Amino acid sequence: MTVASSDRIWTAGLVVIGDEILSGRTHDKNIAQVASWLQVQGIRLAEVRVVPDIQEKIVGAVNALREENDYLFTTGGIGPTHDDITVDAVAEALGVGVVVHPTARAILEKYYADKGGITEARLRMARVPQGAELIPNRMSGAPGIKIGNVHLMAGVPHITAGMLDALTGTLEGGMPLKSETIGCWTAESEVAEILRDAEQAHEHCQIGSYPFFRDGKVGANFVVRSTDADELASCVHTLCDALATAGHDFTPGGI
Amino acid sequence: MTVASSDRIWTAGLVVIGDEILSGRTHDKNIAQVASWLQVQGIRLAEVRVVPDIQEKIVGAVNALREENDYLFTTGGIGPTHDDITVDAVAEALGVGVVVHPTARAILEKYYADKGGITEARLRMARVPQGAELIPNRMSGAPGIKIGNVHLMAGVPHITAGMLDALTGTLEGGMPLKSETIGCWTAESEVAEILRDAEQAHEHCQIGSYPFFRDGKVGANFVVRSTDADELASCVHTLCDALATAGHDFTPGGI
Repeated sequence: MTVASSDRIWTAGLVVIGDEILSGRTHDKNIAQVASWLQVQGIRLAEVRVVPDIQEKIVGAVNALREENDYLFTTGGIGPTHDDITVDAVAEALGVGVVVHPTARAILEKYYADKGGITEARLRMARVPQGAELIPNRMSGAPGIKIGNVHLMAGVPHITAGMLDALTGTLEGGMPLKSETIGCWTAESEVAEILRDAEQAHEHCQIGSYPFFRDGKVGANFVVRSTDADELASCVHTLCDALATAGHDFTPGGI
Repeated sequence: MTVASSDRIWTAGLVVIGDEILSGRTHDKNIAQVASWLQVQGIRLAEVRVVPDIQEKIVGAVNALREENDYLFTTGGIGPTHDDITVDAVAEALGVGVVVHPTARAILEKYYADKGGITEARLRMARVPQGAELIPNRMSGAPGIKIGNVHLMAGVPHITAGMLDALTGTLEGGMPLKSETIGCWTAESEVAEILRDAEQAHEHCQIGSYPFFRDGKVGANFVVRSTDADELASCVHTLCDALATAGHDFTPGGI
């Protein structure tokens, strides 16, 4: 059997850069945001690494994940201060120099015209790895940066959101991973065998089990995922049948 | 100059295991929770990797981070269902077998005595890499697992919290990283040089700049970090002096 091109799985890596995440001071919001956006593009988030503001650590993570995946995203470290070293790290990882991008400079000059004008620090945000393009930023002045399969985005989540929006539809992906959720007021340990058997009977599906404890009772949501809508429907059907036969009430759509 | 033993920096890695984080379905809460707890133990979180429920990916991340750091923590994948494969992956990473831990078995038998009794699926939660000890779990039955410098914890945040609590004070660490925050209703790009100069004048301090946009105005919090209280105080003093001289109002403690 040949694999149709639509079966190709596209993957992305994400490098989250910032001491503030590793110190616990800031709760990361970009992992979930980037993950959800990628799903819609038909691209699977394969791995995330959170690294400190140390150039060699960023270089290592960028090189590992850009080679293993179709796309790489970074968040954080593209601002105007001394701890913003992502551009330098990515340039080092790619073996290119750092240059001031003329369009980025023009954008920043316009943005800061009525805010005290351009300064050396603000001009840092026009620096890009040589050969890079810009990713529009409609929230604040400084653009994101795209070079090869690497996409450098802001750390502040609402600015990242604007940059993702600008990239929507521009990256080739595959079939989006579809999912259906079935909720059950049953301890997952009581239905573990049912879940395993349903998954094993459908080789293109994965079933995840996510337990919870709510209103004094335990339960779990079972999430069935597949790129194939028919397989997905069949697996959900098998699972619901088996739950019903074993006497477990369940809620399609999840609890 | 010799380095006093109190200057030793202790580090930890964290591997977050779970398709649900990488799909964007679940917002991770364990990174910030583990990071904050480690800070208090005098241990620095050096890197986080989020990997899917695929054994070779878990093995790779566990081996990379346990060798680079004093401690390794994992969250997720120690429940009763087929997608819970962390124990097998860590055993493979360490080159040991998987056994049923008699104490874990006894804990589970007692916990499930009035909940339908022990089953094959529930007994999965008594499996440990050979040679492991248990980490008490006062929230639900299944214990965490400690083997060498590797600590396997639950994925559900409040259960993880209980396991961290059980480990409090048991891991050797160094001097906790102290921090002070100074808030400023000023764009960080206006004070980038002040921040860089203050940091360069204090080699044992790092200054992070965290911009925000609130009530229609931009501002930033500057976080000065050091294990040395005197250096920290001196750096904060230098920074505040320089901000005042340049005419920027600032708020000790942050905004």
